[in-house]
Amino acid sequence: MGLDTAQSKPHERLNAYLADDMAAVNDLIRARMASEHAPRIPEVTAHLVEAGGKRLRPMLTLAAAHLCGYQGDHHLRLAATVEFIHTATLLHDDVVDESGQRRGRPTANLLWDNKSSVLVGDYLFSRSFQLMVETGSLRVLDILSNASATIAEGEVLQLTAAQDLATDEAIYLQVIRGKTAALFAAACEVGGVIANAPEAQVRALNAYGDALGISFQIVDDLLDYWGTGATGKNIGDDFRERKLTLPVIRAVAAGDATQRAFWQRTIEKGDQRDGDLEQALHLLNTHGALESTRATAIQWADTAKKALQTLPDSELRGMLGDLADYVVARIS
Amino acid sequence: MGLDTAQSKPHERLNAYLADDMAAVNDLIRARMASEHAPRIPEVTAHLVEAGGKRLRPMLTLAAAHLCGYQGDHHLRLAATVEFIHTATLLHDDVVDESGQRRGRPTANLLWDNKSSVLVGDYLFSRSFQLMVETGSLRVLDILSNASATIAEGEVLQLTAAQDLATDEAIYLQVIRGKTAALFAAACEVGGVIANAPEAQVRALNAYGDALGISFQIVDDLLDYWGTGATGKNIGDDFRERKLTLPVIRAVAAGDATQRAFWQRTIEKGDQRDGDLEQALHLLNTHGALESTRATAIQWADTAKKALQTLPDSELRGMLGDLADYVVARIS
Repeated sequence: MGLDTAQSKPHERLNAYLADDMAAVNDLIRARMASEHAPRIPEVTAHLVEAGGKRLRPMLTLAAAHLCGYQGDHHLRLAATVEFIHTATLLHDDVVDESGQRRGRPTANLLWDNKSSVLVGDYLFSRSFQLMVETGSLRVLDILSNASATIAEGEVLQLTAAQDLATDEAIYLQVIRGKTAALFAAACEVGGVIANAPEAQVRALNAYGDALGISFQIVDDLLDYWGTGATGKNIGDDFRERKLTLPVIRAVAAGDATQRAFWQRTIEKGDQRDGDLEQALHLLNTHGALESTRATAIQWADTAKKALQTLPDSELRGMLGDLADYVVARIS
Repeated sequence: MGLDTAQSKPHERLNAYLADDMAAVNDLIRARMASEHAPRIPEVTAHLVEAGGKRLRPMLTLAAAHLCGYQGDHHLRLAATVEFIHTATLLHDDVVDESGQRRGRPTANLLWDNKSSVLVGDYLFSRSFQLMVETGSLRVLDILSNASATIAEGEVLQLTAAQDLATDEAIYLQVIRGKTAALFAAACEVGGVIANAPEAQVRALNAYGDALGISFQIVDDLLDYWGTGATGKNIGDDFRERKLTLPVIRAVAAGDATQRAFWQRTIEKGDQRDGDLEQALHLLNTHGALESTRATAIQWADTAKKALQTLPDSELRGMLGDLADYVVARIS
């Protein structure tokens, strides 16, 4: 395990600390992506897996397992499992969103076709399923099967709720739990379960992952109106795709009839004209929706850090706490 | 359990014999399709699940469990599991094939959209995963996770192999194992495993399902050039979609240079003109490709029946044998 450099970002420090494990996970991912007869599979997945994502989810699993004193090697399989599930959902998301870009690179559905994205996503799901079965832990399988159902249900919910102004904060929370927090929570929890940690620690790991994931997704949605393009996202993508995210939900709730008509036209009906994005940003600022969304993200990061207190004090725990701070520090 | 009417078709007799179980499986399917927050899910799945398919796969699981003397109720969960996996693959297939019709009805991607088909398919996969975890059998999970990987790999392989004249019978066999036989084999095998049957019986159930599925798919591919439209398939669909199935593989292998050029133009390049389907049928008949494909389907049906000999002699075993005969009797 590597160095802890105080100046670097927490996910980079985690990556350094977990360097040996992460190398083993990367090897496992590459080995299980391979397909003798269908070379399209490694082509498509390599494009995504090698695309330089932060590998947050597998790091969470590895960190949770180490934090609870795990000595075996099943945590490597579980880390690869969560990365495969994540990659599979990205492939399917890009088909659903008809995206052309992810992390500043063309998406697989653009480079190959929607068919490949759908089927290679299915392949990765099935591979993740094989990997977790190999751990022989029914409890792990239970956690990950429930997380999968939450993810899938959240995605369908988003499909119908996104363009509907009746979508409130409770529905938004359910959507982002499905989209992000369910896998963060499961990634952390299975690390504790495989380490045979006490129940209170397992619950704390789930709570940490859940709150971290919620904070992460709120920030992601906020950056769509706040960001600089450095995140690989274009400002206003969600607006153009008519996604009702937290800042907009709050601006809609605080707006008068004229403003409501604006949101109905642009988000519900999708009738968008020049200057609409600027008007949307103006309304978000008028109602303090960006600032209040940022405050909510910080609250969730605090919830995440609080959950860590149940876990053994260690350098690793400190890094997980810093990670929660870092997630919200992306808004600057 | 219901009556055995000698005149009726074997899958109808199986359905009658397993009537109580099938009713319980249908209840379970309906209960697990439900989603409080995402009503799109039961809408889409009901369209497919209630569409009057033969429910062959869940019947195989139930029959295998009973044949091996099973007394519990996990076989119901496993039967619902295999039907969910099947339905999920249909939803994704229709997106991939850009189909407009299945079993004579409009497909879900046409009625709703591709997004719904992709995400509801994912939801059904995750539901099937939850159901199988509930059985608490790691061996069942191992079998079904391997089957899932074979299915997904076969689908990707088909994507690249279908329009390639280099596709030979070995690749075709791998594609149809993924497309059909892997789930038939797993459906049968898990019935034996949950019943704690002796190894030889479990292997026989797998072999029966594998051979039955291969025979079933060969017949399906053959009916595309032989059928009457009563199957809900239009004659020549596979030809128009440029799918290289067994009859064509054999006609290509037996053809001269001129004929090869015809297949290259129509299947590889997709340049199809009026009269091409008639020419394709003429070539298939000239080389006896339809008759020899039929003979191969009958051989696989015989392999399936032979595998049954390892299982306890019973009325149910007789019906499974008749089912293998019936699969090939669809060609008439």
